[in-house]
Amino acid sequence: MQTLRVNLPNREYDIKIEKGIFDRAGELVAEIHKPCRVAVVTDSNVGPLYGERLLNSLEKSGFEPFVITIPAGEGSKSVEQLTTLYSEMLRFGLTRSDLIVALGGGVVGDITGFCASTLLRGIPFIQIPTTLLAQVDSSVGGKVAVNLPQGKNLVGAFYQPKLVIMDPLCLDTLSDRVFCDGMAEVIKYGVILDEELFEKIESAPSREAIMDIIEDVVYRACDLKRMVVEEDELDTGKRMILNFGHTFGHAIEKKYNFTDYTHGEAVAAGMVMAAQYGEHLGISPDGTSKRIAELIGNFGLPQWVDIDKASLLNAVKVDKKGEGNLVSLVIPEKIGKVILKKIDKDGIWIW
Amino acid sequence: MQTLRVNLPNREYDIKIEKGIFDRAGELVAEIHKPCRVAVVTDSNVGPLYGERLLNSLEKSGFEPFVITIPAGEGSKSVEQLTTLYSEMLRFGLTRSDLIVALGGGVVGDITGFCASTLLRGIPFIQIPTTLLAQVDSSVGGKVAVNLPQGKNLVGAFYQPKLVIMDPLCLDTLSDRVFCDGMAEVIKYGVILDEELFEKIESAPSREAIMDIIEDVVYRACDLKRMVVEEDELDTGKRMILNFGHTFGHAIEKKYNFTDYTHGEAVAAGMVMAAQYGEHLGISPDGTSKRIAELIGNFGLPQWVDIDKASLLNAVKVDKKGEGNLVSLVIPEKIGKVILKKIDKDGIWIW
Repeated sequence: MQTLRVNLPNREYDIKIEKGIFDRAGELVAEIHKPCRVAVVTDSNVGPLYGERLLNSLEKSGFEPFVITIPAGEGSKSVEQLTTLYSEMLRFGLTRSDLIVALGGGVVGDITGFCASTLLRGIPFIQIPTTLLAQVDSSVGGKVAVNLPQGKNLVGAFYQPKLVIMDPLCLDTLSDRVFCDGMAEVIKYGVILDEELFEKIESAPSREAIMDIIEDVVYRACDLKRMVVEEDELDTGKRMILNFGHTFGHAIEKKYNFTDYTHGEAVAAGMVMAAQYGEHLGISPDGTSKRIAELIGNFGLPQWVDIDKASLLNAVKVDKKGEGNLVSLVIPEKIGKVILKKIDKDGIWIW
Repeated sequence: MQTLRVNLPNREYDIKIEKGIFDRAGELVAEIHKPCRVAVVTDSNVGPLYGERLLNSLEKSGFEPFVITIPAGEGSKSVEQLTTLYSEMLRFGLTRSDLIVALGGGVVGDITGFCASTLLRGIPFIQIPTTLLAQVDSSVGGKVAVNLPQGKNLVGAFYQPKLVIMDPLCLDTLSDRVFCDGMAEVIKYGVILDEELFEKIESAPSREAIMDIIEDVVYRACDLKRMVVEEDELDTGKRMILNFGHTFGHAIEKKYNFTDYTHGEAVAAGMVMAAQYGEHLGISPDGTSKRIAELIGNFGLPQWVDIDKASLLNAVKVDKKGEGNLVSLVIPEKIGKVILKKIDKDGIWIW
């Protein structure tokens, strides 16, 4: 088992990564918490595959679990769904000495984490991410949120889990599309921080090839994110580099109503756009956007998505990273190193 | 001007207390934040009295304020109202480098603070409490929340303001009932921590007499709360003593739909009940509940409220302080000193 220790003031926690670890979840939870009620939140895709196995494992270790299943998909990350979660948990009599577990992908992790951060002003929370995207991105760093009609993740908190359990075997049940969704974020870590990781992915340019080295890839991506988060938990500086591809990506997701493109697909195209912007500014070496585009293309991710200036401006206007009329764009200086560039919101369109 | 410095790790802030300070709010805000947009949230009672004056003061100091007015009353502390606040603030283009100000009593402070803690994962927040209750209680300590149909403050966060501005002259526009609502909390501080404060109030047993010493009384109450909060920000130990009278008080508020009794009235009767419980257990000296009852009676606060066992049990079941089947009751050992006593939820009825 590989264990990553995340060190934040008063809120250290472990990320455990191992093939087959899933069925030992109960034991691992028992190592950090006494027997209690456990609200397991999952979705209509993941619940049927993994819900029963998790309940068995938790019960065997003396916990009293109950499952709340939400509809799969980004549409569930709403204030309305959140209110339903609150009600269900209260109906079950959950208290602050109990536990909440998120079993699923990013949507489940985000809404469950935000629910845990706010219900009774905070209930301890455990992540069991079952998608590649959730494993390398949303389950590290404590960002939890729900969407508003005005935009993605507009309501949220910074709330660290007590434990994260990642079983790479869970990835076997993902469709190609959902698997590759996560590859976009893995590639992002290569571009922003680690040319070696980027090259490793270049030399394993398919799902099958990646699965041969999946534990290393997941561990490395999580470790890179851990380093950034430890330096800047509250997202006021360094952490902004994780936003590479996301300014454009969020605009894409929004324009297509969070349905036509997955988060990773939107970010993939967004990374190409950000690199093109960097080349336009003379910051990114010529060919940077092409190299990124080729790599994401290997995983069936879109190298370009049709977007218009008005949609882009509209999304940037409610960007959380915005400061008055400025928005911070993350631009690659080379593969493995990025800088933050503040630009006028109106100047974001170059195409 | 009296200034109380609240020291929490990385989130120190000042509480400024002075008669007439209200019209200098803009200057004081300018001392801690550069010019920006300011979302001022107030209610339909306070807005007409103080909204314009605050806008003028903020504008004079270079800020760009806009007012959002919510209906007065506990009913506004809802998820629905919260969603409206989010929308209004986004419509105004608020970003994380702007400010949110709560102008009003506890309801305005609680929902505005929770909105500030979650919108864009956190926007800096300033409290200008205009009731005695909000000055001595809800604006110190960072507890922010909204209600759910299942109970009071069930969804919330710990979120510290950047600044609190208290003008005792604002209390002049309060009705007797709302003024005395706050006296219940002031008396609470006497019972739990400071016999001298309790005696001071015994010797000033009317609104008029209290107003002669109001700056001292507000300062002392805030200072006592500050000490408790600094010791236990996240409410896992010492801070529980602030809950004196609140377990019963919340049950009263809930039974009467948060309408028939104010928070302070419910807490007043709840303090008498808690002291009676303490006498029943042999922890509180005989006569403790009578002495408390007499003092709260001087301010027109109820010394007893009709409540039944079922309502009490029902409220205790969703108490945030609950641990499994136990609830922690705060019991006076004497005036000025309390202890925590864990009791079985079912054993809470002695009447």
